[in-house]
Amino acid sequence: MKKIFNFSAGPAVLPKAVLERAQAEMLDWHGSGMSVMEMSHRGKEFTSILAKTEADLRTLLAIPSNYKVLFLQGGAIAENAMIPLNLLAGKSADYAVTGAWSKRSVEDARAYGQIDIACNTEQLAFANVPDFKSWHLNKDAAYVHICTNETINGVEFDGIPNTGDVPIVADMSSHILSRPIDVSKYGVIYGGAQKNIGPAGLCIVIVREDLLDRASTLTPAVFNWKTQAENQSMINTPPTYSIYIAGLVFEWLLAQGGVAAIEQKNIAKAELFYDYVDNSEMYSNNIAINNRSRMNIPFRLHDEALNDAFLKGAEAQGLLQLKGHRIVGGMRASMYNAMPIEGVQALIDYMKQFASNN
Amino acid sequence: MKKIFNFSAGPAVLPKAVLERAQAEMLDWHGSGMSVMEMSHRGKEFTSILAKTEADLRTLLAIPSNYKVLFLQGGAIAENAMIPLNLLAGKSADYAVTGAWSKRSVEDARAYGQIDIACNTEQLAFANVPDFKSWHLNKDAAYVHICTNETINGVEFDGIPNTGDVPIVADMSSHILSRPIDVSKYGVIYGGAQKNIGPAGLCIVIVREDLLDRASTLTPAVFNWKTQAENQSMINTPPTYSIYIAGLVFEWLLAQGGVAAIEQKNIAKAELFYDYVDNSEMYSNNIAINNRSRMNIPFRLHDEALNDAFLKGAEAQGLLQLKGHRIVGGMRASMYNAMPIEGVQALIDYMKQFASNN
Repeated sequence: MKKIFNFSAGPAVLPKAVLERAQAEMLDWHGSGMSVMEMSHRGKEFTSILAKTEADLRTLLAIPSNYKVLFLQGGAIAENAMIPLNLLAGKSADYAVTGAWSKRSVEDARAYGQIDIACNTEQLAFANVPDFKSWHLNKDAAYVHICTNETINGVEFDGIPNTGDVPIVADMSSHILSRPIDVSKYGVIYGGAQKNIGPAGLCIVIVREDLLDRASTLTPAVFNWKTQAENQSMINTPPTYSIYIAGLVFEWLLAQGGVAAIEQKNIAKAELFYDYVDNSEMYSNNIAINNRSRMNIPFRLHDEALNDAFLKGAEAQGLLQLKGHRIVGGMRASMYNAMPIEGVQALIDYMKQFASNN
Repeated sequence: MKKIFNFSAGPAVLPKAVLERAQAEMLDWHGSGMSVMEMSHRGKEFTSILAKTEADLRTLLAIPSNYKVLFLQGGAIAENAMIPLNLLAGKSADYAVTGAWSKRSVEDARAYGQIDIACNTEQLAFANVPDFKSWHLNKDAAYVHICTNETINGVEFDGIPNTGDVPIVADMSSHILSRPIDVSKYGVIYGGAQKNIGPAGLCIVIVREDLLDRASTLTPAVFNWKTQAENQSMINTPPTYSIYIAGLVFEWLLAQGGVAAIEQKNIAKAELFYDYVDNSEMYSNNIAINNRSRMNIPFRLHDEALNDAFLKGAEAQGLLQLKGHRIVGGMRASMYNAMPIEGVQALIDYMKQFASNN
């Protein structure tokens, strides 16, 4: 088997141990004679998988008992519409625009009510998270929306604003489970699974119970958080196999020592990489130091005419998916929990070699 | 490995050859060094999988070139909301209520506009599809909605009404690919994958191009059929692994001789089973002969006090998931494409044995 390191921003690298377990269990889960894909979602086998998956996620993130965990579909982009439908209830909401994904969240939300902009760094090339004191916050807002890690722009929050009684709704798609968080400081946390959790097609929503009574009658049933909370995410057939894989990832993460332990590895990987980039004459990253993402690191070659040669050489060495998102160009290395530090070192070794040859 | 036959209504049995191939390719798809779960949805590997999956589905169903094929999420229940959002455009729609799922479609659609009832057999225990001549159809309706196979009630259409210029929108979740259909007679065909197609979490929508210009501004972006059609279902990250498994199922089905060939097997399985039930004194099915589903066969024991004993004995013999849906009770045997006739024969053998012992 070809040895590769996969720097895709998502769907992304998964722990090898998880894939080996899924492979071993593919035709016969725990002596049931069935693949997990073949199980009725209401049968005793799958409901035990779902219960353990939720319990392990609650352990990993220390989710308080007054929060519900929902296993939905449609990814974070579907939630862009479902958040205002579930929460606005005739009020307005404040959105912080700190990158391409939070900008997209605003565009998607506007069909459903009044969306105000708390801050917007687009004119500054999305290079930082503005000082919270400068944000325009409405104390009567239904919620404040933030994207705590911008996958495309490589901007990560190093704290969250104090919004008083206004709940914070956070898109954590690309850094959930990469570092400890205090769930109690949020009203809603959501994220597509296809980065640090598992396969595409699963979206996890963690929502404080007191926010479940605000949904518009226009909210589609499968995205009505209250209905789904009351039905263990089974108002429709949930994405069972994706939930199973997420559960295997959670077990793997617990075996690694949990989120606090993986954070140390993520810090080490990110420091190794940024340190090299900052000290090179060939590469650069323009994000404010304290907002640099540990998960998604965009970088540029000083001579962009070399981009194609860089990518071709990287692929030849098994260093895959390094092309930056089309709306920003350049390069991007995503280093999720499942990326070993050996992969980061291999990338740096290649970048050094490429720099000395060009 | 335990030998079982899985009669689940969905998620449901998959072809063993498909699971074996998925197992073999789990860690390394075609020498890429990656699992399909780890692939960027925009990379050359996954886009080739998606293209072949769509092409094979087009071949299997002979889908005309003026129809788009979308790979979405949320299942058929999400589409219950998205159909009126995408199609009503201020008009009304006619719905045929022939079982629990089409009844549910009406309930979900009503938030978005005027829904009229073309026919309703609930008072007749959903035991048939009414003669099309008796339907109340509005010639100015935006569409006519039907569910061509009712998974819970076991009612299958043996034809479709002539609705003139009004497009038919058909929920085919539980019998798509089980028999040939003339796609050109429909405006929209949709279905959750977790019966005859693949894993839960994928919903296929086949839509005639001229219907793509009617969406409400309230349609969430990931469910806007036109936007998704213009973006190869990639306005968000599609459920990549589920699409891959669906593609393997399509390849398997082509190798079986396609839909016309599998229909013959499905007819043989259904005839074998209904013939036994009709001639037994222990079991019964109350659906009108020409509307009996080949895929989902509800049946009752004449003495319902024996239900638990029947299910327990069946499970002991590896005959799984025979309990009827909770809203109708009794038993149900689902016999999708991947159920071999040996499974149906084993079930009949057990039923005979149980009848003679009780």
